[in-house]
Amino acid sequence: MRIVAAPAAMQRLARNWRRAGTPVGFVPTMGFLHEGHLSLIRRARKIVGPRGAVVVSIYVNPVQFGPHEDLSQYPRDFQGDTKLCRAAGVDVIFAPTDAEMYPGKAAGLYSTYVVEGALSRGMEGASRPTHFEGVTTIVAKLFNLVLPEVAVFGAKDFQQAAVVRRMAQDLNFPIKIEVAPTHREPDGLAMSSRNKYLVGNVRAQAVVLWRAIQKARDTVRRAEEPVLAADLKEELKKFIEHEPAARLDYVEFFEPDTLKPVSEVTSGSHMALAVFLGKTRLIDNAPLDGKEAGAKLKATRSSATPTPPAARHQ
Amino acid sequence: MRIVAAPAAMQRLARNWRRAGTPVGFVPTMGFLHEGHLSLIRRARKIVGPRGAVVVSIYVNPVQFGPHEDLSQYPRDFQGDTKLCRAAGVDVIFAPTDAEMYPGKAAGLYSTYVVEGALSRGMEGASRPTHFEGVTTIVAKLFNLVLPEVAVFGAKDFQQAAVVRRMAQDLNFPIKIEVAPTHREPDGLAMSSRNKYLVGNVRAQAVVLWRAIQKARDTVRRAEEPVLAADLKEELKKFIEHEPAARLDYVEFFEPDTLKPVSEVTSGSHMALAVFLGKTRLIDNAPLDGKEAGAKLKATRSSATPTPPAARHQ
Repeated sequence: MRIVAAPAAMQRLARNWRRAGTPVGFVPTMGFLHEGHLSLIRRARKIVGPRGAVVVSIYVNPVQFGPHEDLSQYPRDFQGDTKLCRAAGVDVIFAPTDAEMYPGKAAGLYSTYVVEGALSRGMEGASRPTHFEGVTTIVAKLFNLVLPEVAVFGAKDFQQAAVVRRMAQDLNFPIKIEVAPTHREPDGLAMSSRNKYLVGNVRAQAVVLWRAIQKARDTVRRAEEPVLAADLKEELKKFIEHEPAARLDYVEFFEPDTLKPVSEVTSGSHMALAVFLGKTRLIDNAPLDGKEAGAKLKATRSSATPTPPAARHQ
Repeated sequence: MRIVAAPAAMQRLARNWRRAGTPVGFVPTMGFLHEGHLSLIRRARKIVGPRGAVVVSIYVNPVQFGPHEDLSQYPRDFQGDTKLCRAAGVDVIFAPTDAEMYPGKAAGLYSTYVVEGALSRGMEGASRPTHFEGVTTIVAKLFNLVLPEVAVFGAKDFQQAAVVRRMAQDLNFPIKIEVAPTHREPDGLAMSSRNKYLVGNVRAQAVVLWRAIQKARDTVRRAEEPVLAADLKEELKKFIEHEPAARLDYVEFFEPDTLKPVSEVTSGSHMALAVFLGKTRLIDNAPLDGKEAGAKLKATRSSATPTPPAARHQ
């Protein structure tokens, strides 16, 4: 496994692969890898095959963090990440510095952004106004440096995956966007590098996001009359904020393809929510018909993984 | 020579070239080709060599036109362009439709734009607020469809070339941006597809842009004291608007690398201007040391071209 820091070196490598006809699978991450990331890496490997190249980028992109967000505290463990990547058969870790990714930014010499203006408006985009602009910009840059055939994103960041897919399609990137299911801890908490922030009894309270999803599913399953989104939101807010450390940022019900909010919630609706647990902001989402996340929860529970990274995050 | 309309077909072709190791040179145009375009095509051919592929896109990108601009009247002559490209040894003309380039746009299903926020602010960007956003977006899309090693732009659109170069650099496109000198008619008028709009005695008046550049050069050359940009602008405005059909939109003096306006004009400054001649808006620019444009004017005068397209535009 190679570790590449310089963007020019990464691009040179990518161009060599291209010339050699080697298919490239790409998993962009912010590091502090967990089982969720590893499942994306496995998916990338499966797609490009044993003779393809799998690239994992590890880069905490400052441009996607707001001024009052957790950029400086974002958890990092490059050594741990390196071990996990090596064990997972990754070919290249691309880990550039800010100065290499945004050269001259402080001096006004970096000035180009990729902006998606529809899918990125609501939910995360409403709570974090410049977030998706940062995401689409860094993803476009990474696509041009890694030149992959396929890039794999996690369904845990459902809106992000939708925004990136739209961006790739709109800008005609010659890249297939794959979205792999959310991985969960045994109690249902979606795996996230930010779970590291959850200390003491806050960790136990964090399962309320998953429980809120279950509750919404139950409500929709049992309903004999249309379920009004506004009513269900209010109910879930109370339910969530019953946990002493929890404060709801948003909960939304929407069409999964368009992210368009629905006023009547059905089993075909998708639910997403963001909740503060103390200062830690967590997100989760799932289809209300329970198909994807339920199946995946079981898979995570039953599969034995050689290096369970979840242990690092507890 | 092949003519390709479908973006997917263009990208397939590009990927095949990539696999075969064929270098690709790209000249994006809005069609109605003239000698200026042909010089870009020759430059592209020179760079990729006889075994490389030269692609010319012909696409009048609606997104870079403002609501009250000349989109619907923009001159088109696909048959003439085809002949010129064939004669110039172009391998592929890529000529997509709006529906293919911006699928679902009317229904809100197209939503991604590439925005350069520094170099694109002044001059053309000030007069045409959404123009460069349209340019950087279509150029990024075309880059992803044609996958060139090198793309050639004309110095006539000096600010555009600077914006595109910055965009390509910021987003890490693996593409070299070449800028080829402005071609001029024998009287000095910069070649432009929009020159077709100049009828009657307005054509003769249009040389005032070039004369204004000469006048600024003279002023700087002869000056014994610093030349204040504000004074020179005022003088040139009077000079230009002495032509009955001419109205100055802007004239600017700036550092050629940063496009930063200067308050004192020197021989190292670059000048750009936009002038309405009746309803036709023309632009021009040149370094005030006379090096690039002067040399090129001579070259154009003396070189015999097999198919002089200027004749079509008079």
